[in-house]
Order: sequence, then C-alpha cells, then structure tokens
Amino acid sequence: MNPNPSTPAAPNPIYDLIIIGAGPAGMTAGIYAARKKLRTLVLTRDIGGQTAWSSDVENYPGFTMMRGTDLVEKFEEHLEKFKDEVELRLTTTGVAKITTPTADGSAAGALAASSNFVVTTADGKSESARSIILAGGKLPRKLGVPGEDAFLNKGVTYCAWCDGPLFAGKDIAIIGGGNAALDSALNIDKIVKSIYIVNLTEALTADPVMVEKIGQLQNIRVMNNCETRGIKGDTVVRAVTVADKAAGGTEHDLPVEGVFIEVGSIPATDYLKGVVELDKAGEVVIDGNNMTSVPGIFAAGDITTVTEKQIVIAAGEGAKAAICASQWLSKKPA
Amino acid sequence: MNPNPSTPAAPNPIYDLIIIGAGPAGMTAGIYAARKKLRTLVLTRDIGGQTAWSSDVENYPGFTMMRGTDLVEKFEEHLEKFKDEVELRLTTTGVAKITTPTADGSAAGALAASSNFVVTTADGKSESARSIILAGGKLPRKLGVPGEDAFLNKGVTYCAWCDGPLFAGKDIAIIGGGNAALDSALNIDKIVKSIYIVNLTEALTADPVMVEKIGQLQNIRVMNNCETRGIKGDTVVRAVTVADKAAGGTEHDLPVEGVFIEVGSIPATDYLKGVVELDKAGEVVIDGNNMTSVPGIFAAGDITTVTEKQIVIAAGEGAKAAICASQWLSKKPA
Repeated sequence: MNPNPSTPAAPNPIYDLIIIGAGPAGMTAGIYAARKKLRTLVLTRDIGGQTAWSSDVENYPGFTMMRGTDLVEKFEEHLEKFKDEVELRLTTTGVAKITTPTADGSAAGALAASSNFVVTTADGKSESARSIILAGGKLPRKLGVPGEDAFLNKGVTYCAWCDGPLFAGKDIAIIGGGNAALDSALNIDKIVKSIYIVNLTEALTADPVMVEKIGQLQNIRVMNNCETRGIKGDTVVRAVTVADKAAGGTEHDLPVEGVFIEVGSIPATDYLKGVVELDKAGEVVIDGNNMTSVPGIFAAGDITTVTEKQIVIAAGEGAKAAICASQWLSKKPA
Repeated sequence: MNPNPSTPAAPNPIYDLIIIGAGPAGMTAGIYAARKKLRTLVLTRDIGGQTAWSSDVENYPGFTMMRGTDLVEKFEEHLEKFKDEVELRLTTTGVAKITTPTADGSAAGALAASSNFVVTTADGKSESARSIILAGGKLPRKLGVPGEDAFLNKGVTYCAWCDGPLFAGKDIAIIGGGNAALDSALNIDKIVKSIYIVNLTEALTADPVMVEKIGQLQNIRVMNNCETRGIKGDTVVRAVTVADKAAGGTEHDLPVEGVFIEVGSIPATDYLKGVVELDKAGEVVIDGNNMTSVPGIFAAGDITTVTEKQIVIAAGEGAKAAICASQWLSKKPA
C-alpha cells in the first residue's frame, strides 16, 4: 500500500548505544556492551587516547610492563573479537554535536527521532542511538606562552613518546613536573643529548619511584620553581625563556631545540556545553551509575569527574557505564 | 639514659597501609601503594578471591580469554615485582577485628597507638598501620535449605570450577540462573553427564551471550520458575528437591549426585559491624574517594557499595583507593 513504488533509501540504523571515544574507557565499554548484546557504534577520532602516547605502562594490573601502544593494541584486539555487535568507526573530524530527544528535532535533520539521541560529526554526518556513553578523554593542556603556537611541530610537541626520536642528540626542555613529564624524560633520555625539566613548583610532583629514577640520570637537570615565559627560534625552536621564582623572577634563556609540553590535560568537552552538566574544570559530572545530568547519556574515564585518572580506573568506569546503560535501556520504553 | 639496659624486643613495624584481601581490588591497591612508596602489608586469606573460582574470564580488557587462576597469577606476578614495598602475607584465620585510633587502645594490647589502626587476626596476632584498605570481597551465599550443610563436600559445592572434575560422568544440578551459574555450567558440561539448571525466576538472568551458548548444549536442561527446597542423600547427595512454581508449587526430586550452588555472594563484612558504616546488604559504604565512614579506612571492590561487581571495576577501585589513601596520608599529621 506504499503510495510511492520506488524504494526509499534505507535510513541509517538506530543503535542501542553510541560510545564516543576509544581509549581504555570507551573500548572497555564496547566490550561490555557487546556482552550485553547491545547494537553498538564506537565513534572516535583515534584509538587508545592518552594511553597511545604513553611510553611504558607499569600499572595496568596483569601486564607488569608494556608500551602504551602495545596495551592499546591488546584492548583493540579484545574489542575486535566482538565485531558482530560493535562497530568501531574512525571520524577524522570528531563529534561536533549531540541532540537530545527533548531538543528540536529539525536541527538534526531527517534522522531526528523524538526518542533517540543524534550524534553529529563536524563533517555533518549523523547517527542515532537510544543511549550514549561519553568517553572522549582529555586533550593536552597548552602553556599559553608566546611562541607555543608558532613553533608547533617546529620543536614544540605535546607527545614525547611520538616525537622523541626527532630530537636525537639534541638538547631539549620538558615543561612540567608530574608523572607525564617524568615519563617523557625517562622515555627519551637515551635518545636526546640533555634534558632540562622546567617545573613550576618547589619539587617534582610525580610518583616517588619516577623521581628516584630521574635523580640517577646524569643528563637531566631539574629546574624547580621555574616558570616558562616563552619559546624563541627562527625557522625552528632555539631557546625557551624561563623565570626563576627563587631568584626574584629573573628571566633567562635555555638553549634547546625541542620543547616538550607536559602540563596536564583538559577534558574534551567543548561540544558538550549546554548538553550535559560540566564542573568548573569542564569535566562531565556523573553519579554512582555513571549517568550524566541527561538520562540516557552516560560517561566514563578521564572526561568525567571520577577522582583519579588512570588506565585501569578508566577501564573499570567504562565497564560500569556500559552495564548501567544496558540496565537503563532494558527499562526504557521502546 | 635507658633505665633498663636489656634491649626490649623490637615492636612490630607500623605500616603506612594494611590492605585486607588480595583479589583484583586488593592486589591493584598494592601495586599502586608500592608506586607511591607506601610501606604496605597485604593481609589475606587467599590469593585472587572470586576470580580464582572463575573458569574463563572473557571481559578483563587486554586478555581476550583467560582462566581465572591464570589471571590471578598475572596479578600476583605484578604485585610481586614490588616486593620491596609490599609484603603479601597469608593468614589462614582471617581478620577478626579492626581497632580504630579513637577506640580504647587497651583492647588491642601493647600495639595500640593512639594515632594508628590495629588489625587483629582470629589467631590473636596484630599489626598496626596509619591507614587501611578493606578489599575482602565476597563469600558465596547459602541457599538455606535442609541438607545444604550436611552434604557440604559430599556433593554440595560452591565452586564448580574447583570441584567440577569430581563429578565426571555424573548427573548434577546447578542452582541459580545468573552469570555465575551459567559460567559453571559451561565450564563443567563436557565433564559431567547432564546438568539441570534450577532457576528461581521466569528466565535466566545471565548475559545473553551465555544464555545463547547454554541453549546450544544438549545435556543441559533449564528449569525456570523452580525453587530449591532441599538436598537429600545417604552418605552422599542423591537428589535435590525442587518446587515448580508454574505448576502450583508441586515438589519433586531430581536424581543428581552433585549440587552446585551459584546464587550469588555476600560481602565478607561481619567483623566490620560497628567499625565502619555498612548498608542493608552488608556492603561497606564509600564516598567518591573510596573513603569509608572512618577517615583513614578506605575500601575497594566487591566488598563495597560500588554499583557493579566485575574484575576490571574492582581493579579500578583498588587503584583509586590506594591513590586516595596516599593523598590522605600525605596530609595526616605523623
């Protein structure tokens, strides 16, 4: 009885669950969603998130020591095992918008269905789902000093693990004093000639085991109480300007050809403003069931307000979010 | 200036942290405590907790499929790597009492120090620590039917994985319909002759992937809506009595030589009554920093109110508890 005999284009399927992000939280959520037989799409800009930038991971239980990229591969293989249930899709542009069921459907175009969420990537493509797990993790935090943007990839990097080999035999500076900074130092100290660790606080804040290791290396100089003021160079980086707070803030230049910025990270939640509740740091606020302020949107891992950010914690949170999403879906009217 | 020239016996050391339990939560807490250079004692009745009773673990991310005992071994190896910081000690009797700093010190004997916790095992031995992580997990729940205690280890078991081989070629019943029950069935179905799955509810509550697998096996009969009323036998089990609720509660005997009870588990928190806040189910109430109602006592994993009980969730919680304990200790007056 179809008045139009030509078959219309099949609409995109409606997923039970779209997971945004494929770090430890997102991939574990995928594994658990598959076991609950949820029709799932993992939409992500990269595989592994921050874990892929880690050199050696020593604290994911079960693997005493593993390169970050290898651990990511293990997670991916695990998720791949469930490929009948879970589709893993890379989106180069990233997610730009989530339309919730209560919002104006027209904004999301033809796909908008009043009872479903619509996820739109920056290139304008959309997918619908009955529930969402936000697992987009964090992005590197910028210093915000002159020269930082101008010399990006001309000596300035946010990923020692990826870019370290480009600085073989050179003098470099690492900005930061936490685990990420020291991990970077330990990873590249055999490659580069020397390392200044420029640390804003009175003492390094990394785990004592890492501080100890750093203390044993001859080519690393820790500069505590030092603020980074700018990055200088010509076609490439030639120096970093630091101010020694203990010496009344006197500025001087350290002659380096590489500046590795390791001053933490910020949640990738710009596109979520006005969609779900964020705290002052921009982290997604979740309850004990990993639910955000919007029923049906869950979140897990470093993107959330969870107390600590660690691979195994993110993985645990991903499992919890998927189980809670599955329980929520089982009670949701179809 | 010591008035007594004979050297007194050296008192036991005061640990920074005592972790009670060595399942995924306790062992991960140990790994993280070591990385924070906390002087740590892991006091436990067994290694691995419930994970050691699991046949195949398919959902600990990074290992697509692993026997529970093998996964436990991986965790133990990982913890062993930090043996300079963390002592793993088996106590056959289990922990009987925790005395908090505010309690009457005399109750704990000479070890009681006003600013430390004292952990006493049932054999009367005590250790002191500045902080505690409760990670004792859960114990199997009993059915509470006639014959259950009398035939323990004479056909009645709570661990299919451990005891399955004893029932080679025999007819057995598994009581329960969740993941643990079906995991047991899948683990032993090639060993035993036939399996009745006696399930109280209308349908199996295990993950759909497991329900599907069970449906494909010829020697398994699922009996939904059936209540277990008793276990009968002579020197060993000969039958289990079930009441079919759909047939008005008519009782009949299933001729079996083994009864595998898989009806869930209860938190091992009897000794914690009056020490920390427990919920109605006996689980330890924790906040977002894994702190219990007593500052300095933290908890992690299946023993707590955490929403879901899974290996990777327990591991994540263990990491979180250790980091939070370390932060709390760094602020505590010595």
